[in-house]
Amino acid sequence: MTNIAKKASDMVGLPPGTLIHVGEKRSESVRITIFDYDEKFLEEKEVKTIEEAFPYKDKQTITWINIDGIHNLDLIRKVGGHFNLHPLILEDIVNTSQRPKIEDFTDHIFIVLKMLYQTGDDSEIKEEQVSLVLGSNFVISFQETEGDIFNFIRDRIREGKGKIRKMKADYLAYSLIDAIVDGYFLILEKLGEKTESLEDEVMLDPTTKTSQKIHRLKRKIMSLRKSIWPLREIISNMQRGESKIIYKPTMIYLRDVYDHTIQVIDSIETFRDILSGMLDVYLSSISNRMNEVMKVLTIIATIFIPLTFIAGVYGMNFKFMPELEWRWSYFVVWLIMIGLASYMIFYFRRKKWL
Amino acid sequence: MTNIAKKASDMVGLPPGTLIHVGEKRSESVRITIFDYDEKFLEEKEVKTIEEAFPYKDKQTITWINIDGIHNLDLIRKVGGHFNLHPLILEDIVNTSQRPKIEDFTDHIFIVLKMLYQTGDDSEIKEEQVSLVLGSNFVISFQETEGDIFNFIRDRIREGKGKIRKMKADYLAYSLIDAIVDGYFLILEKLGEKTESLEDEVMLDPTTKTSQKIHRLKRKIMSLRKSIWPLREIISNMQRGESKIIYKPTMIYLRDVYDHTIQVIDSIETFRDILSGMLDVYLSSISNRMNEVMKVLTIIATIFIPLTFIAGVYGMNFKFMPELEWRWSYFVVWLIMIGLASYMIFYFRRKKWL
Amino acid sequence: MTNIAKKASDMVGLPPGTLIHVGEKRSESVRITIFDYDEKFLEEKEVKTIEEAFPYKDKQTITWINIDGIHNLDLIRKVGGHFNLHPLILEDIVNTSQRPKIEDFTDHIFIVLKMLYQTGDDSEIKEEQVSLVLGSNFVISFQETEGDIFNFIRDRIREGKGKIRKMKADYLAYSLIDAIVDGYFLILEKLGEKTESLEDEVMLDPTTKTSQKIHRLKRKIMSLRKSIWPLREIISNMQRGESKIIYKPTMIYLRDVYDHTIQVIDSIETFRDILSGMLDVYLSSISNRMNEVMKVLTIIATIFIPLTFIAGVYGMNFKFMPELEWRWSYFVVWLIMIGLASYMIFYFRRKKWL
Amino acid sequence: MTNIAKKASDMVGLPPGTLIHVGEKRSESVRITIFDYDEKFLEEKEVKTIEEAFPYKDKQTITWINIDGIHNLDLIRKVGGHFNLHPLILEDIVNTSQRPKIEDFTDHIFIVLKMLYQTGDDSEIKEEQVSLVLGSNFVISFQETEGDIFNFIRDRIREGKGKIRKMKADYLAYSLIDAIVDGYFLILEKLGEKTESLEDEVMLDPTTKTSQKIHRLKRKIMSLRKSIWPLREIISNMQRGESKIIYKPTMIYLRDVYDHTIQVIDSIETFRDILSGMLDVYLSSISNRMNEVMKVLTIIATIFIPLTFIAGVYGMNFKFMPELEWRWSYFVVWLIMIGLASYMIFYFRRKKWL
Amino acid sequence: MTNIAKKASDMVGLPPGTLIHVGEKRSESVRITIFDYDEKFLEEKEVKTIEEAFPYKDKQTITWINIDGIHNLDLIRKVGGHFNLHPLILEDIVNTSQRPKIEDFTDHIFIVLKMLYQTGDDSEIKEEQVSLVLGSNFVISFQETEGDIFNFIRDRIREGKGKIRKMKADYLAYSLIDAIVDGYFLILEKLGEKTESLEDEVMLDPTTKTSQKIHRLKRKIMSLRKSIWPLREIISNMQRGESKIIYKPTMIYLRDVYDHTIQVIDSIETFRDILSGMLDVYLSSISNRMNEVMKVLTIIATIFIPLTFIAGVYGMNFKFMPELEWRWSYFVVWLIMIGLASYMIFYFRRKKWL
Repeated sequence: MTNIAKKASDMVGLPPGTLIHVGEKRSESVRITIFDYDEKFLEEKEVKTIEEAFPYKDKQTITWINIDGIHNLDLIRKVGGHFNLHPLILEDIVNTSQRPKIEDFTDHIFIVLKMLYQTGDDSEIKEEQVSLVLGSNFVISFQETEGDIFNFIRDRIREGKGKIRKMKADYLAYSLIDAIVDGYFLILEKLGEKTESLEDEVMLDPTTKTSQKIHRLKRKIMSLRKSIWPLREIISNMQRGESKIIYKPTMIYLRDVYDHTIQVIDSIETFRDILSGMLDVYLSSISNRMNEVMKVLTIIATIFIPLTFIAGVYGMNFKFMPELEWRWSYFVVWLIMIGLASYMIFYFRRKKWL
Repeated sequence: MTNIAKKASDMVGLPPGTLIHVGEKRSESVRITIFDYDEKFLEEKEVKTIEEAFPYKDKQTITWINIDGIHNLDLIRKVGGHFNLHPLILEDIVNTSQRPKIEDFTDHIFIVLKMLYQTGDDSEIKEEQVSLVLGSNFVISFQETEGDIFNFIRDRIREGKGKIRKMKADYLAYSLIDAIVDGYFLILEKLGEKTESLEDEVMLDPTTKTSQKIHRLKRKIMSLRKSIWPLREIISNMQRGESKIIYKPTMIYLRDVYDHTIQVIDSIETFRDILSGMLDVYLSSISNRMNEVMKVLTIIATIFIPLTFIAGVYGMNFKFMPELEWRWSYFVVWLIMIGLASYMIFYFRRKKWL
Repeated sequence: MTNIAKKASDMVGLPPGTLIHVGEKRSESVRITIFDYDEKFLEEKEVKTIEEAFPYKDKQTITWINIDGIHNLDLIRKVGGHFNLHPLILEDIVNTSQRPKIEDFTDHIFIVLKMLYQTGDDSEIKEEQVSLVLGSNFVISFQETEGDIFNFIRDRIREGKGKIRKMKADYLAYSLIDAIVDGYFLILEKLGEKTESLEDEVMLDPTTKTSQKIHRLKRKIMSLRKSIWPLREIISNMQRGESKIIYKPTMIYLRDVYDHTIQVIDSIETFRDILSGMLDVYLSSISNRMNEVMKVLTIIATIFIPLTFIAGVYGMNFKFMPELEWRWSYFVVWLIMIGLASYMIFYFRRKKWL
Repeated sequence: MTNIAKKASDMVGLPPGTLIHVGEKRSESVRITIFDYDEKFLEEKEVKTIEEAFPYKDKQTITWINIDGIHNLDLIRKVGGHFNLHPLILEDIVNTSQRPKIEDFTDHIFIVLKMLYQTGDDSEIKEEQVSLVLGSNFVISFQETEGDIFNFIRDRIREGKGKIRKMKADYLAYSLIDAIVDGYFLILEKLGEKTESLEDEVMLDPTTKTSQKIHRLKRKIMSLRKSIWPLREIISNMQRGESKIIYKPTMIYLRDVYDHTIQVIDSIETFRDILSGMLDVYLSSISNRMNEVMKVLTIIATIFIPLTFIAGVYGMNFKFMPELEWRWSYFVVWLIMIGLASYMIFYFRRKKWL
Repeated sequence: MTNIAKKASDMVGLPPGTLIHVGEKRSESVRITIFDYDEKFLEEKEVKTIEEAFPYKDKQTITWINIDGIHNLDLIRKVGGHFNLHPLILEDIVNTSQRPKIEDFTDHIFIVLKMLYQTGDDSEIKEEQVSLVLGSNFVISFQETEGDIFNFIRDRIREGKGKIRKMKADYLAYSLIDAIVDGYFLILEKLGEKTESLEDEVMLDPTTKTSQKIHRLKRKIMSLRKSIWPLREIISNMQRGESKIIYKPTMIYLRDVYDHTIQVIDSIETFRDILSGMLDVYLSSISNRMNEVMKVLTIIATIFIPLTFIAGVYGMNFKFMPELEWRWSYFVVWLIMIGLASYMIFYFRRKKWL
């Protein structure tokens, strides 16, 4: 919600393509790392200024430029200038409230994704925007903060594990997307645990706060859904084979990550359904408890109110009340009262209230 | 609702294309402003009569004629005559209950949109119809009242900021639509705040009016949805590239505003889901409170009704009641009553009612 | 429902194309009126026998034959014979339980519609079937009763208002459909009022009958939906431009009436959603009222049951009860009772039950 | 359900195309009737052995072979052999748990349908599988039991009523399907009556069993839906005009029966919606009744509990209670009690509980 | 859920195509059986090492290699190497959390399915992953454990029953899929029984645990749905006739198994709807029971509270209470109390509470 709000108040009235950083500023400095490789060759370095990265544009090798921190608008503008990126691309990179999307600009493809991760123990799910620009021989990735999610890929490049060094830039882009989707599975795992512990709570020990917890978990899942759902279309778009910078051998890998995305979406829908079902169970358990409370009241009241009446009758002060004089009256009244109470108890037994 | 009603009673039986102003008359006078520009040239003026605007039709420069106030049917008719607009266009311009739509008349495109804005503090969301006629070198925009929503664009034209002076009339139309969609974000922001404060109310301090508030907010959102939903199709239609007066460079901007529209619709759907969830939380909180009330009653009644019965027994006036004579009876009765009450309290503790 | 029933019991086992009038017989006599016109020429007459209308078939001018009353099967059969109508068309004309539909028979198009209107004050919504046969130079319309819904069109033809006299038969058919759709707006207006007054009832003064009223209004709206929904497809079918007897200039008018149909359907869906929301508000208001009743009971019982117990204690007749003898006992007991009651009231205040 | 179960336990592990009769054996003997006709010629006979029917395969006239009883697997196998039917067709004919479907085998079309009918008075809806094999000059129909649903068609063939004798085998197949769909209307009529009487029950006199009745009717409707829904696709498939044995003149009749199917499905959906709405009304009526019960209790308790307290106070046995001695005390206490009760009644009046 | 979790923690960061066994290790040893056959020839053997199976690849006969146990990654890798399988296929084979899917690699097709079965009595539904690789003359099937589900097919091959020996490898693959789908019917049968017994519980004797049971059964059905749903698309994909290794005669069999899949999915949806309906019935039955409890309380309290008040009045100790002295007072008071109680009972009768 807050992101949308930011978008609105900051950007209204600006011409399209105006660079303005939307979102909290998460990292102080900007970190630029470059991987330049082909099957035999590998160069890895961290540069201070973006200009050092520019010469790689025209090299035949695959170049991966990773930029952590997107608040330095000047830097973004320079990248845009050198790599001929459309102003709207630059605007989307720095606007972290962007919906995941793909844009095909013939000689490069622009992709916006949401990376999800959890920090610390049991803390909130964090969302971070990752933008990718895929050219025929380079990938530029923009992250909001330094993260370790792409470290696996760095290792693979360094060690030449898997096919990554043998494939083109499109495979690198696939690998980055795949890493992000793999991250969703970790989040799903946490959500699955939360859902199951909440389910236990509903089943075994529901409290008055339970429905609010269900509601909050539902909201969290809805917000994830919003981040992940568009991915389906993005990857399906890449697979369609209309772009010249996505080569056939990568297609089958894209199909694989597509399948994973469907699996993630399936699980999210399942969580939603489970949470809806949990609410029903919760509501019926409230009603059942109310029933139980009512039964206790009814049993006690129904047994003692008539007895109290009888006691009241013989507490009256009329001059002429023949029973009062009789020797066994008190004894008989006790018998009647015990009989009445026993019948009531028997009646409630038969009704299965006891 | 009321708009539909107006439509019905005013227009039934009139031949199609009959001009009749439907909706409240919001502005007294009509204000006509003209921007005529190309990359190097700019003329801006306010004219008294619409005839002064007619010569611009045949100029090569881009002309934007903005008409605030649509109740002057004569003026509308003149515009229609000069710019060869179909009678149904004119009918739609003056009928403010029109659904957002696009019509392609080969040499011009007609678009109806709903502008949303809030006036004053915390006041109602207002809806205003904006109609655009986009020709190859002109845009005519019709607003119900003078508004400042297009002022940003006026400034951009004046100062030559952004690409607006370098592009064609289609970019101007895009800019107007974009300004309207930007306005939706401001409304969403307000709705987001309302939804969140209502959510707090539901969670922390629900009252008997809360469900009505949820219902009202839901209705408001449903009505927004009705205004915004068709926009999706309108922009998607413009993007399809079938019209000769929408040029390729504008396409990417249309895709951008399309993305924004999807984002707005997504948020509206999210609000709807959240509100539905809130109702469930509210209902369960009512049930919980009823439970609490019942528990208090049950605890008090269950403790004191049996005690009162005991007191009643020894208030009976039978001649022969041995206990009455015994010295320690009163003391023993008190012990019994305290024991009974303690057991009850213990029982409720175990049941977690206390 | 009843219509479906009629269909079933009357028609089962008859060969397709058998003429049998299904529905209540609404008009006694059959009334046949003829309009024959082109841009310059106009003839209007009412004929006694259908044979008088036959010569118009081969005239170049546009002929509109309107037949009020469809129970005269012989007449229908004659029309079918002269104008070469398929037996199934004739069956559909006289079967008023027909679903709205369109059939294209190359040289004529057959359309079934539902006309909706209200008679008297606040009375039920009535549904009447209107069938249109559109040929290249004629329109035959069949109504169940004489109605004034087409009078506007008659006036327009007589006075040459609008484009009707300049256009072909397809424009006449469009005008008739448009008149029917305009009638839907009048019904919507009434439904809107009913929905709003019911909404007020739910918000301000819900009674035990309110949920039934909501249910009934919902049913009414569902039945309207069933009548109107197919219209969407019918007009969209006409617009597709596959028929040779629907000319291009009429297309834009069809698009206009299509837009109106969408608007009607939108409003119906909105009413449905509002009514569903109202049910939720109603249910929560019942629960709230139950809560209030429970609170009153609980407050009274919780205050007085303990006091009654105390009074009961000192109403016991034990010989040895020291308090009874003490001079200030009565006064102290009153103090205790008042103190207890005050505490209870304070407790309920804090709980916000008072 | 039971049908599915049968399918599972009986058929698992058998090779596809194995003939095994699934479903209850409804008729003892098998009855084979043959109609052979063209426009001028008609032969009708009942044969003892299926071999007598084989010569008709190569005759130019239309032949309708109707087989009542599908448990004679040997007979089915012989039919399959003579008419070149695929083993899977034979398997489907004898498996009554088959879903309605159509299969096009170029020179013949295989259709499975569900016939619905009611026997006796107010008894259950019965479902019977009807399989049709439509060849270029023959129709073979398989029914589970002898039924009178096709008698109308037999009469039409005998008497040459309608177009049946003038058309090809496809029209005969259409007529059989039409007869089955007509049967659905009779079922709908019964369901409509049941729905309406249940609606009256919900509105006027809901009992604790009402929700179960609603649930059962809903289940019945869901099961009908499952039988009828696929028909839509079946007829739409036939209409598509891809088969050479369905001729153009029959198309319009198929469109007619398609319309009827849509109408049936529409009504089923409507019943569903009505039943859902009824449940809501029922639930709110339970809540309302609970409210009423609570009010009676609250009114009685709230009036008498304080009065009983007052009586209790003056039933105390303290030595020193000044009021007891005063001459008018008893009278005054009565006044106070009556005043209190009156105030309570006035209070409840104002709250509209009385 | 747990499967997804496994996927996440085990696989994150590995390069695509890395073999890692995901899921519980269900069988100790790996069992490899080979069927090699054509219409006249049959060889069946169990081999110790996978290398013994390799020569069959180039034989003209149909070869079915069944591998029970997928934890031996080395073996899987060897199969992949010899049969030219893509690394992603191998990854999917050993990852048992895979979603059902189909991949067409021109010269072979890869299919992942979920086999469902129940072991022991009334035990849980187990899910096992089955992967099929279909080449032009071979099928390789991978199961997690040895199962008897394919024994029927082995028997058919051995005995030459049905068409299996006369058809190609695609028919064998179809037979395996068909066997798996047949297994679904057995599961459905069990679920149908569970649903019906739960329905009886809801109708006749609902307990506080019933809603939890409904929820659990719903979850089970949702999880089945997730396993079965993708099958629809898989078979529809195979039918599309784009692959050269699926021959025309098999198509009709695929259509048959497609129909069965639809039938399974239909039944699952029906179960879902029934369970939702059951929850409504359950909730209304809780409310009804609460109503009954309330009525008992209200009847008892309403009858005795006023009587107790009367008794209380004449238990007061005022000196001057004329009634106390009168001889018939006690008798009259009894009459009044009996009258009052009778009226109350009559009142509750009229309200149908008794």
